[in-house]
Amino acid sequence: MNEFDLIDQIKPLLPLNNTVIVGAGDDCAVLAQAAGQDYLLFKTDSVVQGVHFTEEEDLLRVGRKALARCMSDLAAMGGSPQWALVTLGLPEITDVQPICRIYEGMKSLAEKYDLAIVGGETTHCPDRLWISVAMVGRVAKSACILRNGAKPGDAVFVSGELGGSRAGKHLDFEPRLLEAQWLTKRFNIRSMIDVSDGLAGDLRHIMKQSGVGAELHSAAIPISADARRLARSSDTRTPLSSALSDGEDFELLFTVSAKEAVALLDAWKKQFPDLQLKCIGKIIQSPVLRLVTPEGVREIHADGYLHFK
Amino acid sequence: MNEFDLIDQIKPLLPLNNTVIVGAGDDCAVLAQAAGQDYLLFKTDSVVQGVHFTEEEDLLRVGRKALARCMSDLAAMGGSPQWALVTLGLPEITDVQPICRIYEGMKSLAEKYDLAIVGGETTHCPDRLWISVAMVGRVAKSACILRNGAKPGDAVFVSGELGGSRAGKHLDFEPRLLEAQWLTKRFNIRSMIDVSDGLAGDLRHIMKQSGVGAELHSAAIPISADARRLARSSDTRTPLSSALSDGEDFELLFTVSAKEAVALLDAWKKQFPDLQLKCIGKIIQSPVLRLVTPEGVREIHADGYLHFK
Repeated sequence: MNEFDLIDQIKPLLPLNNTVIVGAGDDCAVLAQAAGQDYLLFKTDSVVQGVHFTEEEDLLRVGRKALARCMSDLAAMGGSPQWALVTLGLPEITDVQPICRIYEGMKSLAEKYDLAIVGGETTHCPDRLWISVAMVGRVAKSACILRNGAKPGDAVFVSGELGGSRAGKHLDFEPRLLEAQWLTKRFNIRSMIDVSDGLAGDLRHIMKQSGVGAELHSAAIPISADARRLARSSDTRTPLSSALSDGEDFELLFTVSAKEAVALLDAWKKQFPDLQLKCIGKIIQSPVLRLVTPEGVREIHADGYLHFK
Repeated sequence: MNEFDLIDQIKPLLPLNNTVIVGAGDDCAVLAQAAGQDYLLFKTDSVVQGVHFTEEEDLLRVGRKALARCMSDLAAMGGSPQWALVTLGLPEITDVQPICRIYEGMKSLAEKYDLAIVGGETTHCPDRLWISVAMVGRVAKSACILRNGAKPGDAVFVSGELGGSRAGKHLDFEPRLLEAQWLTKRFNIRSMIDVSDGLAGDLRHIMKQSGVGAELHSAAIPISADARRLARSSDTRTPLSSALSDGEDFELLFTVSAKEAVALLDAWKKQFPDLQLKCIGKIIQSPVLRLVTPEGVREIHADGYLHFK
């Protein structure tokens, strides 16, 4: 039983109504308000000590990560974060300073994107620390990008470099809010997701929800220096396999019609000269994920990182 | 270091902006949208195995409780719940049925109040199950009741019966949504809170935020049959001390001007014949909590139930 099988079993039990544009299964829930109003975006995400961060980790970075993960999901829909609540599960408190570090890490990131932290809760949890963040944002109806709009022929793009994020990027990544808002205002982005489960796994989410497949070019996939470095000390991982499945890159993965692809790439380079954007392949009709390599075409069956595997 | 001391230390670290009508420190956050729109209410609440429920407990009741706790907080501001996200911290999953029980418990309550459950997250937590619920609702600006409006002379009311909720009511209570919405539409409710920390503790929240005190009449405090029963097998608890400090009653505690008190009580009896409402005392200028008993007037220094005490 993995995380996604569980979600499939739970989904029929969730009560919905006609205000729900998108419920479980995309980056955020999308909720309709009165006519003429923006959609609300609603997201929760949590980090658990010993699962998502080690006991030795500076809680400033952990707090920042907890907030940034939700922001990354709002970015992947083209939205802007507005308000967050923070829930802490805490063992016995003997010193308030470590707790304050969590909030200090959140504060600078929140201020950068004008997110207000409007409260939350502390609750007793004897064994280990966890942080659950709930975030509400908004997006103009016309700018809201789901996972289900990819069409055969679309170009597939990814920002930044992938793989090896456990060397540090999983804590210090920048949520791609400004980039996503810029994209959705200027181009007809057909589908978008943030890379949290790994490139292959997250592309499969787009494929499944859009009813399509994809063909990637191995030489085009941007591999991080950390992925290369970590692969050197591993018998089983290659830099490419890390980039395909490590997860927690928190980069933007999106598709756009082929005829917009070149203009988009040119405009991106001018707007964001310090952040690489790569066209890594295209959407195809057949519902498979293919990788074109110098040795030939392979099908990728791996699912990226799965909880509970 | 208790929960409230911790919150006092954290509050200055929370970034706010001019959309935040009420941040940390009331039942819910209150958030302004465009002019003419209702306020949004935003709340999170969590339950942890071994802290808020036992391992033997039916997860149907636990799921229901997790959702009802947030609803009770929205009720205490006069609001209506609209959308929820559910986060589960889960040990290794071997059987999906217990997880589905959680959602079944939520489903019937959600449908009763037209709340949509729009997704959430499952995350790995090795030691114990926890559930964190995030809820968004709305309230008309004129109907939003805070904790800070109590005035000397106000009558203090409480719904239902108090104490001994650990015998079962803490799981099966009904959030007082309909009652609170009815009250705020018809009467000038000055301050309101739901009784979660215990009558004395929650009245202190109103006192502190309104800059007032209160005088209660011991004979008027509604004591539950469970509080009486549990007191019989305790050397230290009396039925009255249970009603003052047990907590998790999830009843409405509110104040209204003395001149509206009788009309309110009469109208309530007609509208909600099956739910008792008692006037238990009045708001006073001096910032103390007094209890008038047959033996004389006492000051109550106890704080009700505190986490981390």
